Amino acid sequence: MASADPPFGSVAILGLGLIGGSLARDLAARGVRVLVWDRDPAAVDLAVGQRIAEPLSDDAPEIVVLAVPVMAACELLDELRDELHGARLVTDVGSTKGSIVALAEKVGIGDRFVGSHPIAGDHRSGWAASRAGLFAGARVFLSPAPSATEEAVGLAERLWRMVDARPEMLDAEEHDRRLAWSSHLPQLMASALGGALADAGVDRAELGPGGRDVTRLAGSSPEMWADIGIDNAGHLAPALAAAEARLRELRLALEAGDGARLRQLLAEARDWQGSS
Amino acid sequence: MASADPPFGSVAILGLGLIGGSLARDLAARGVRVLVWDRDPAAVDLAVGQRIAEPLSDDAPEIVVLAVPVMAACELLDELRDELHGARLVTDVGSTKGSIVALAEKVGIGDRFVGSHPIAGDHRSGWAASRAGLFAGARVFLSPAPSATEEAVGLAERLWRMVDARPEMLDAEEHDRRLAWSSHLPQLMASALGGALADAGVDRAELGPGGRDVTRLAGSSPEMWADIGIDNAGHLAPALAAAEARLRELRLALEAGDGARLRQLLAEARDWQGSS
Repeated sequence: MASADPPFGSVAILGLGLIGGSLARDLAARGVRVLVWDRDPAAVDLAVGQRIAEPLSDDAPEIVVLAVPVMAACELLDELRDELHGARLVTDVGSTKGSIVALAEKVGIGDRFVGSHPIAGDHRSGWAASRAGLFAGARVFLSPAPSATEEAVGLAERLWRMVDARPEMLDAEEHDRRLAWSSHLPQLMASALGGALADAGVDRAELGPGGRDVTRLAGSSPEMWADIGIDNAGHLAPALAAAEARLRELRLALEAGDGARLRQLLAEARDWQGSS
Repeated sequence: MASADPPFGSVAILGLGLIGGSLARDLAARGVRVLVWDRDPAAVDLAVGQRIAEPLSDDAPEIVVLAVPVMAACELLDELRDELHGARLVTDVGSTKGSIVALAEKVGIGDRFVGSHPIAGDHRSGWAASRAGLFAGARVFLSPAPSATEEAVGLAERLWRMVDARPEMLDAEEHDRRLAWSSHLPQLMASALGGALADAGVDRAELGPGGRDVTRLAGSSPEMWADIGIDNAGHLAPALAAAEARLRELRLALEAGDGARLRQLLAEARDWQGSS
């Protein structure tokens, strides 16, 4: 889809993984000038070779997207703080928002910082997994820094709407609390199960379709998720404790041979599952 | 696919849920005479109305398939013990094999009893979810009673091969031990997570695609899974304890802010996931 009048002068995307790569593809297809950087020059070569983007140069981009894992995004933000003053919007794509929003404020670019968290992607990663249309219909949480201007917020909304995502404003702290339960906890449950099966010597090929569903996320990047977990430990550790307590209740019902209690626990989860 | 010479005189299927209904469809399509019973007469009417089967009558079927949940299958087996002497093969489709195999031996039909466990289906259940081709390529564990004849085992293998499944012999005790890990534990992990999210007031609509994968099994039948759990508690309770221990290790790493340890735990699960 070509646009006669691209709404942004240029967008710099730092990091060409699943999210950054897919965003580059979608923006380029809509006529936006996309400038890219990645710590792996081969990824930049691929994006340039496919005529999706140009290598990042001295041009000051209007929008800068930090599309690297949470901790790396904080490091980049700190490192580039002076250069980022030239941008109208600086955003990221990480799964936690509290620390990067606080850092943006601290380094003096809070006025133009609006954190983003697109709920898209899966356990695959890297440029090879990126694709057009990844964000179509996906929710994107937007967490502005406290001093972010309306202009910066408006630009962030337009950026994500342009790739057919659905932006939703969410305070950074509340974002991190909610995502601990809805995203980070499911990830760690899948990893806990994968680890337990590994210890027991059960091969993944022994699982049926249901077991494969439950463990699919265990294939996610350990580096990325360790970052997210440590960054959101304050909200995530209590969520893990709640899941441990539920498992223990199931086990106690089993050990007591208490079928009625077991049915009740399973029905609570089934009712939740069927509630939406 | 019609067959000029159906290899079985008739197959009685007791229970027209996802598994029984799908088996009825596949056998009928291959020219086998299928006789059906269900505690819900409406399910029988549907199968008869669609010309898939006849209602169970006084005719002695060559093969009897108990296609009801584990505990109900044991009750049926006990109740019908005298009538089942007329069959050349009696089998079931339950997720545990130890107790039903022991019961078959006890009530004197061990010579013709070969337990079956098809690894097929999902969280949906009932006749409405049944479909042709459900067993194509699926593994079916066969656990013969200790005194089962070679003829009975051969018939069980032919029955499942006819619907394109892949029968595999597996001792009942070893079956229950392995399935506790590969099937029953993933089910309870999904239910534990669903229960924890229900307690925390997190709506299912808040989950991304990964979280929906992890919790999908929570929608399974509480009645069916409580039966399976109680019947297999001896193997399943230790598996649950192992998963609890893994969750606790993840939580301790988070609470200590130990990113290296967290990465290691996640990498163990990821390596397992990628190993096959």
